Amino acid sequence: MAKLYFRYAAMNAGKSTALLQAAHNYEERGMQVALFTAAHDSRSGRGVIASRLGLSRPAATFGPDTVFERAALPPALACVLVDEAQFLTAAQVVQLHRMAHLEGMPVLCYGLRGDFRGEAFPGSAKLLTLADELEEMKTICACGRKASMNMRLDAAGRRVLEGEQVLIGGNERYRAACPSCYYAGDDVDATQAPGLFG
Amino acid sequence: MAKLYFRYAAMNAGKSTALLQAAHNYEERGMQVALFTAAHDSRSGRGVIASRLGLSRPAATFGPDTVFERAALPPALACVLVDEAQFLTAAQVVQLHRMAHLEGMPVLCYGLRGDFRGEAFPGSAKLLTLADELEEMKTICACGRKASMNMRLDAAGRRVLEGEQVLIGGNERYRAACPSCYYAGDDVDATQAPGLFG
Amino acid sequence: MAKLYFRYAAMNAGKSTALLQAAHNYEERGMQVALFTAAHDSRSGRGVIASRLGLSRPAATFGPDTVFERAALPPALACVLVDEAQFLTAAQVVQLHRMAHLEGMPVLCYGLRGDFRGEAFPGSAKLLTLADELEEMKTICACGRKASMNMRLDAAGRRVLEGEQVLIGGNERYRAACPSCYYAGDDVDATQAPGLFG
Amino acid sequence: MAKLYFRYAAMNAGKSTALLQAAHNYEERGMQVALFTAAHDSRSGRGVIASRLGLSRPAATFGPDTVFERAALPPALACVLVDEAQFLTAAQVVQLHRMAHLEGMPVLCYGLRGDFRGEAFPGSAKLLTLADELEEMKTICACGRKASMNMRLDAAGRRVLEGEQVLIGGNERYRAACPSCYYAGDDVDATQAPGLFG
Repeated sequence: MAKLYFRYAAMNAGKSTALLQAAHNYEERGMQVALFTAAHDSRSGRGVIASRLGLSRPAATFGPDTVFERAALPPALACVLVDEAQFLTAAQVVQLHRMAHLEGMPVLCYGLRGDFRGEAFPGSAKLLTLADELEEMKTICACGRKASMNMRLDAAGRRVLEGEQVLIGGNERYRAACPSCYYAGDDVDATQAPGLFG
Repeated sequence: MAKLYFRYAAMNAGKSTALLQAAHNYEERGMQVALFTAAHDSRSGRGVIASRLGLSRPAATFGPDTVFERAALPPALACVLVDEAQFLTAAQVVQLHRMAHLEGMPVLCYGLRGDFRGEAFPGSAKLLTLADELEEMKTICACGRKASMNMRLDAAGRRVLEGEQVLIGGNERYRAACPSCYYAGDDVDATQAPGLFG
Repeated sequence: MAKLYFRYAAMNAGKSTALLQAAHNYEERGMQVALFTAAHDSRSGRGVIASRLGLSRPAATFGPDTVFERAALPPALACVLVDEAQFLTAAQVVQLHRMAHLEGMPVLCYGLRGDFRGEAFPGSAKLLTLADELEEMKTICACGRKASMNMRLDAAGRRVLEGEQVLIGGNERYRAACPSCYYAGDDVDATQAPGLFG
Repeated sequence: MAKLYFRYAAMNAGKSTALLQAAHNYEERGMQVALFTAAHDSRSGRGVIASRLGLSRPAATFGPDTVFERAALPPALACVLVDEAQFLTAAQVVQLHRMAHLEGMPVLCYGLRGDFRGEAFPGSAKLLTLADELEEMKTICACGRKASMNMRLDAAGRRVLEGEQVLIGGNERYRAACPSCYYAGDDVDATQAPGLFG
């Protein structure tokens, strides 16, 4: 039976790399995949999934009005892969869940779990509730412990505790952190913040 | 480092049994635990954690106004165990997360992931976003596949698709189901619905 | 597709409780299960799966010459559950793996991972190599960390480092330990050793 | 507490990519890592960890006589990463397990679980018995199911069922397979076998 997977992580864990590897694994066996990423991800240009290790490839984009339905995808498709899945709407997650179970199409979603305030993203909240498999991708805090939270920093490297969930075009920076460092509110070093939504 | 665990499942997977086993494991090694369950769980009487296998023991209850803080718990405590954790508020989950990481207190929460509409419970939504470890406890659908969803049935055994998230004192019945059966909307047999929030 | 599961743990984690809960989950949905335990487990009497929480029920026993084959089991069977699976032979694990994949029969094996010397048991070694899902059942060391190792103690409560893998009828005692305590070789307290192969 | 991790998979799942991503995650946060790979891996030349996605970097090599000890590694080291960990000896796995727990050094091992006969590799057998976390990296069979087994093919693309565990310099080819395809013994297509120990 096909399943809906949610591979979640804090920032800069290697989600895009893992997605590109999964796509490669399918294609190497002669199977076709469909790649999606969020339309408002401006990091790598519209319609590109790019990893910090230097890998990238084009992808279709989804916005809030995109409808995921089996009939709109190629007949011989073997798998749907979605990057930046935290930006899916709840309705889109249900569409993908139904596609897995009623159409037999495996769906692999990669995304952030929570934002810099410790609040869920809409897509993540629904994926965490419905996905058949929840798989954490691990990364580390600057202190060496597992990072499960995300901090937002301003242009001067000072931590920001309030604000919009996503600020496109801003000069914000992010850092993955363990809960101890996150709650301790330590000052953080902007030079350790490698970028927006990596 | 202490962690916040969320062990989630569909209904009737054995969550209460697993909680009582974990408590036993601690106590067998001479360590003290604190047990909590939701105040509005009327199945086993107020302040009891009971498993379908026949095991039960008293527990403190929490309601929406309960504040979880380390100072209110015994000094030598080794672990906090929370049953029916889907009924925690988001603020309580943050309290427990902070207690794990800032006070070094392990917290094990057991609860449902989603309701009969496929919507998250408030406590589950926050636990899924913050918990350090998400561990699925598996059970099966009547078709033999893994059950991850919950169906609500009325007194006549017919499936109910809309209504309040929780109806205390009602004659509702529930059945754990795989997504295929859940979406197919098959008629279900009320005799297979063993009870409310098992 | 049916799978072969190996749910492994150190001693006294609650493996038998979890097996009895899984059996109950199947039976509650009207499905039939087959229970097996090792013939040389003398703790609870021959042919009984007993948990430290007080639950028990009869089970067929397997010895080194037992052959697991689908035709020897009831036609309507939904699941095979094996306790003390560390005592399976490698050949029996292959039989169960083939039964899962070629006959569509789910097989759930519960057992210890390693012995008191840190060596694998024969059944565990093969299950760790072949099982479709490896699921750790957690318990704790006396120091509060996760226990993944097992210590053997003599009648006076002193740690034993060498000897036979299994000594039936001896007065050995065991204690689950984290690797730090295991390698540190700390003296242990025999009163914390609750029994043989719990 | 530092841990010993074993991230295992069938062939061509992306183990080397994941190792290189983990190394990048550490280095991006200003931490130093040590990379090891097996000395007899002739695929990428001696002392290189290379992924099928095109990434590669130099690595120290280990052979059967290598001794892993903390004092021989850089003082400020944050993590040890080992590729082709199936070729470790049992004694080396104990060295790494002790280094994690007695010296506080995280050790991440990546490797195959079983060989083409369904037998464990020596390093994998010991890692499966001792590692603190067992994490499966998934890939797919040509039939679309999860692959957990490895088939060996001869130069003509015919399946080979017997032989040495590793044949350096041979013209063997391998294919990851699900257990159903593995036991069915289906003829396989050599063009789908991407190489030796990918």
